[in-house]
Amino acid sequence: MSKKELRIGLVGVGFMGRTHTNGYKRVSDFFPDLQNRPVLKAVCSRTAATVNAFAEQWGYESVETDWKSLVARDDIDAVDICTPNNMHAEIAIAAAEAGKMILCEKPLSRTLEEGRQMVDAIEKAGVNNTVWYNYRRLPAVTLAKQIVASGKLGRIFHYRANFLQDWTINANVPQGGQGTWRLDVDAAGSGVTGDLLAHCIDTAIWLNGSITDVSAVTETFIKERVHQATGEMQKVGIDDACIFHCHFDNGSLGLFESTRYARGHKALYTFEINGEHASVRWDLHDLNKLEYFDHRDESIVRGWRTIHVTDGDQPYMDKWWVPGLSIGYEHSFVHQVADFLKSLETGEPCSPTFREALETQKVCQAVLDSAAAKSWKGVNEY
Amino acid sequence: MSKKELRIGLVGVGFMGRTHTNGYKRVSDFFPDLQNRPVLKAVCSRTAATVNAFAEQWGYESVETDWKSLVARDDIDAVDICTPNNMHAEIAIAAAEAGKMILCEKPLSRTLEEGRQMVDAIEKAGVNNTVWYNYRRLPAVTLAKQIVASGKLGRIFHYRANFLQDWTINANVPQGGQGTWRLDVDAAGSGVTGDLLAHCIDTAIWLNGSITDVSAVTETFIKERVHQATGEMQKVGIDDACIFHCHFDNGSLGLFESTRYARGHKALYTFEINGEHASVRWDLHDLNKLEYFDHRDESIVRGWRTIHVTDGDQPYMDKWWVPGLSIGYEHSFVHQVADFLKSLETGEPCSPTFREALETQKVCQAVLDSAAAKSWKGVNEY
Amino acid sequence: MSKKELRIGLVGVGFMGRTHTNGYKRVSDFFPDLQNRPVLKAVCSRTAATVNAFAEQWGYESVETDWKSLVARDDIDAVDICTPNNMHAEIAIAAAEAGKMILCEKPLSRTLEEGRQMVDAIEKAGVNNTVWYNYRRLPAVTLAKQIVASGKLGRIFHYRANFLQDWTINANVPQGGQGTWRLDVDAAGSGVTGDLLAHCIDTAIWLNGSITDVSAVTETFIKERVHQATGEMQKVGIDDACIFHCHFDNGSLGLFESTRYARGHKALYTFEINGEHASVRWDLHDLNKLEYFDHRDESIVRGWRTIHVTDGDQPYMDKWWVPGLSIGYEHSFVHQVADFLKSLETGEPCSPTFREALETQKVCQAVLDSAAAKSWKGVNEY
Amino acid sequence: MSKKELRIGLVGVGFMGRTHTNGYKRVSDFFPDLQNRPVLKAVCSRTAATVNAFAEQWGYESVETDWKSLVARDDIDAVDICTPNNMHAEIAIAAAEAGKMILCEKPLSRTLEEGRQMVDAIEKAGVNNTVWYNYRRLPAVTLAKQIVASGKLGRIFHYRANFLQDWTINANVPQGGQGTWRLDVDAAGSGVTGDLLAHCIDTAIWLNGSITDVSAVTETFIKERVHQATGEMQKVGIDDACIFHCHFDNGSLGLFESTRYARGHKALYTFEINGEHASVRWDLHDLNKLEYFDHRDESIVRGWRTIHVTDGDQPYMDKWWVPGLSIGYEHSFVHQVADFLKSLETGEPCSPTFREALETQKVCQAVLDSAAAKSWKGVNEY
Repeated sequence: MSKKELRIGLVGVGFMGRTHTNGYKRVSDFFPDLQNRPVLKAVCSRTAATVNAFAEQWGYESVETDWKSLVARDDIDAVDICTPNNMHAEIAIAAAEAGKMILCEKPLSRTLEEGRQMVDAIEKAGVNNTVWYNYRRLPAVTLAKQIVASGKLGRIFHYRANFLQDWTINANVPQGGQGTWRLDVDAAGSGVTGDLLAHCIDTAIWLNGSITDVSAVTETFIKERVHQATGEMQKVGIDDACIFHCHFDNGSLGLFESTRYARGHKALYTFEINGEHASVRWDLHDLNKLEYFDHRDESIVRGWRTIHVTDGDQPYMDKWWVPGLSIGYEHSFVHQVADFLKSLETGEPCSPTFREALETQKVCQAVLDSAAAKSWKGVNEY
Repeated sequence: MSKKELRIGLVGVGFMGRTHTNGYKRVSDFFPDLQNRPVLKAVCSRTAATVNAFAEQWGYESVETDWKSLVARDDIDAVDICTPNNMHAEIAIAAAEAGKMILCEKPLSRTLEEGRQMVDAIEKAGVNNTVWYNYRRLPAVTLAKQIVASGKLGRIFHYRANFLQDWTINANVPQGGQGTWRLDVDAAGSGVTGDLLAHCIDTAIWLNGSITDVSAVTETFIKERVHQATGEMQKVGIDDACIFHCHFDNGSLGLFESTRYARGHKALYTFEINGEHASVRWDLHDLNKLEYFDHRDESIVRGWRTIHVTDGDQPYMDKWWVPGLSIGYEHSFVHQVADFLKSLETGEPCSPTFREALETQKVCQAVLDSAAAKSWKGVNEY
Repeated sequence: MSKKELRIGLVGVGFMGRTHTNGYKRVSDFFPDLQNRPVLKAVCSRTAATVNAFAEQWGYESVETDWKSLVARDDIDAVDICTPNNMHAEIAIAAAEAGKMILCEKPLSRTLEEGRQMVDAIEKAGVNNTVWYNYRRLPAVTLAKQIVASGKLGRIFHYRANFLQDWTINANVPQGGQGTWRLDVDAAGSGVTGDLLAHCIDTAIWLNGSITDVSAVTETFIKERVHQATGEMQKVGIDDACIFHCHFDNGSLGLFESTRYARGHKALYTFEINGEHASVRWDLHDLNKLEYFDHRDESIVRGWRTIHVTDGDQPYMDKWWVPGLSIGYEHSFVHQVADFLKSLETGEPCSPTFREALETQKVCQAVLDSAAAKSWKGVNEY
Repeated sequence: MSKKELRIGLVGVGFMGRTHTNGYKRVSDFFPDLQNRPVLKAVCSRTAATVNAFAEQWGYESVETDWKSLVARDDIDAVDICTPNNMHAEIAIAAAEAGKMILCEKPLSRTLEEGRQMVDAIEKAGVNNTVWYNYRRLPAVTLAKQIVASGKLGRIFHYRANFLQDWTINANVPQGGQGTWRLDVDAAGSGVTGDLLAHCIDTAIWLNGSITDVSAVTETFIKERVHQATGEMQKVGIDDACIFHCHFDNGSLGLFESTRYARGHKALYTFEINGEHASVRWDLHDLNKLEYFDHRDESIVRGWRTIHVTDGDQPYMDKWWVPGLSIGYEHSFVHQVADFLKSLETGEPCSPTFREALETQKVCQAVLDSAAAKSWKGVNEY
């Protein structure tokens, strides 16, 4: 109708290509008041058969097999980067130079240096941008942000988070290639640090402010894996596990852990914040719930509250169903699309921007350097 | 491309109109192998402004304000009935007579008599049909069915289920009209029995077989409410709460409870089956999980297992994301659309059919009659 | 020191003999302010070897093999009855006539008629008395009572409770004799109704007031078992499972279930009360916790609170350890001993008295009669 | 009867004096087969009124107000040290020289150096000894040990534990004196490291073997508190919070955190071990449960098992009640007494001995030194 089109060009047809596309396709149904609507103009992947199948399944109007062609098209307003991490910088910089808006999958980049170049390019171009740290926009997590922002917690003492998986315990999982590029250091940049801890760090900075210094340890449990490109056993360059503690600028202590070797956990992302008066905690395996403890409750009936975040006065939930009825993982992407579209109306940035995501890159870099050096690293050094 | 269109005509633009429409719109993205695809041909509601807004938001091609016009259209293959319960029978019978496929929101009907007429009509017409008992198709519930069907539980002793809400505790909630027709006995036929227990009964019959006799009690806690049509205080005709115990044909005991007066429960639907060797239980507030206990486990490490039903080898989950990432309430409708479309390919019925849903109506009728008579009622009498 | 002795004569050396004895032995350590202290004067059981071993293990000063001798002793102040149910009435009546205080294991009696005779005897004798419905005195349950009494819940709509076990699923479990007399109707009077539901009913009446009428169903899943007395297969006379719904005098609906055929549940006793403003629920498997929901909490952070009932301002917990440190099942008996001793100081009865426990017997009788007659039974008829 | 007496002399009448005494008093009731039985011969504390009241409440035969007198008595077989940490070394060394058996409350000592002197003394004297790391002997924790020892977990990747409290958040809590000596560095040696992390480390070494090197951070959130001895505001010398990561000798990564500033947690001690095939986790707030995940379970019904550790074939539980009925915190002390008495029969040491507890002191020292130096510390350096 009277909505303005936002013509999307998607690069990458893997898991994230699916989640983002779903976000674009659903947003107008559930956020009808937005003035812009995404249009699936083009999708790009190197293999013609693959990209054609994806386009047909999801309804993209056209395909490209070279991302440079996609970036060069006049009928694309926004480029969405869903490639392996090693392509983020090159595509983002080119897209920025072409004046496209950019929505980039996290982590922003493999290295801090790449990230800096991306931020420079995007700020020079002045284009709208966001990085898909989607978990911020699960309603329970956004509610945690509201609670923190309200001051209910008082002075913060502790922040702890972990992201535990178990899918790479099998030594036969290869590195490199479709589905397993996350184990290939050239494609991914790092292992769990960039893949999983980056989420934890993004949320932490959002909820609890800057991290000032870190002390980390990493481990690679399985030292060699077959590389899909060569078919040969090759040294594994990524971190299988990473743990670090840190200080936040507000004086609180932080504790972070991530691994792909925690048997029994498929995608357990949890965080907890302990303040003087109150605490909150959350768990991705149970994503509609937020736990909240308030010491100011009457003492004999004081306890952790399990909040089923599905009411209309809780974040985003007026758009969905009725109280008690759960939403899922994918909705976080719908919400990010909605907020990005809204930012086009308001002129406000859509957090996290590339600039904001660069802060997460700094912490990741400090973490990896700390682990390598076996010493504390100040984040401000970066 | 080569998919065959299934042209949908939707009647009703309330909460269920939204859930069904979302099901139609998403199914092809996630079930690409289906040979049919739904097309949102027309939507019908009495008020032009309302139906136009709905059509625009969701992308229906056309609108009607009289359901008879919709049923009469040649370009509609399937009629989806999302009206209040008092319209189900009339529309379904007319649609059947017009040779349309029918997807009818639950409960099938207000009364058993209405339900019988609907089944007669549909069977006479020989049209494809299904009733939206959507909870069957949440993956954890479908997994429970697989477990039961595998024989793992052994002889069944107990089945218990409840559906607890708290939204009508406030005496100022009116009856009748938009959003509150469920409190108006003329529109709804019954209260929690048809609205909530019908779900519990449908699942129970599916998982545990026929119910033979019932003994029930109902209660209406708030006796009078303002009726939206008249603005006047009027006797409440529905059951606010209903409890019954029963025998199943397999010799097990059943226990069911439903209420809208259980403070703290928004939409708590739970069931549990206890067998000789193993038990399963489930909770809608935590819908991705199924709990399973197997007495044959080694004794010192025996316990209830919490299964996070998000793996690719679990029902429907190969269509969605990766292990550990949750789906939500709405996906049950996508799955039912997928199964309905599949049934068009295979020629198999899409359970529950009208005929199968009539069994649930019989139990509901027996329950209401038992409560009124304060005596046991045999289901076979109906 | 200056404490007065309460000389205990215990009849029965089974499971309950142990729990009560432990209560007597621990109370003075943890309730030092009581003016009376129990002394283990004598224990009685029919087999000399058994009773001697028990006395030696637990420190009873003397033994008897005939309960009549024990009741006749001058150096016994209080008789504690831990026999199978079929001995309760005879011993209690004789003890009352001998002017002894009586602490009787629950259920009060096999039948309502027996119970009436016991109450008559005890009231005629005017002796102190209590019945061991121990679960009332778990701190979380007592806290529930405080919450209800405070009026926090508002008008009550629902009370539901169940007591689920799985230990008799095996068809080889015999009836009669040591450890399995609960399956022998002559010894036990009834099955789960007197054994398990009696607990649920006692708590319910305490928390929610009188039950006015009931509608029940019972089932005996395994119809014949070997009797230990005869070694022969014999009809099972007890109820393996019992379900009933009811009305309370305050207008709320009740729902109760008990079974020994719920695979996976060892001793799952749960109850929940739903009021207009707030609800509470509890689970014996997690006995230090009480869950509480208050609708008056600020809406965006409203949820079920899990109260870890281990603080000094919560019932009984000033006597034990420090916040966060759990107590167990056995402490309920210590608390009942403490309250009984306290009642000797204050002159107040120690609830539940025989008179109060008779109310539970009435409900049990109505339940069994309702199940047999397949009709509602009014409790006031009894 | 024929049991041999073990005459106990207890030093200290605080919280631990109560838990140990309860252990001595209950052990013979529940472990009747032991050949030794504790006798409460004497208790010692500096203030006559206090120690007399304690002796009267708990039934000690005599009192002392100078621990040297107690150690010098001929009628004492075993000295139990429950004083603040600053007295452990002096008393233990004197008691060892007097040829007494010693049961010492944890942590063994304030400093590693003190601990070394204690071990030297005790080994020179050749007396029986144990340190009260009681949590090992909660049945669920002992079951975890059995599971690990069985090899079910396979290669271990991760060990994580935390111990979270919130009782010192209030700035008005003083340091020094009765109940708050744990905040006084002179009395306690350290803060959460020796008080709480020592438990976590003891369990970890027991379950997962030696820790080789550590990297730690500590924090003191409230820098000054009134000292009870002087009534004046004084610098706080203890650590309020401590976090460290480490390597175990078996190649796994460890992560430990402790604080008294985690609002909402009274005494939350949790640990989790992730192995190649299986994982276990435990939580002190729910101490009768152990969670276990086994990847070898059939995939569609695979999940975390919640084991209610109350069955007779699970550790220690044949001594208590029946399946489903919980025990509490205090039972861990009864079990340690039982195991100590058993060790007198078998001649085997009662773990953890002073020598074993010294390993925990080494890790604690390395942790504190690492935090001070802001660098990794090898445990073998100590």
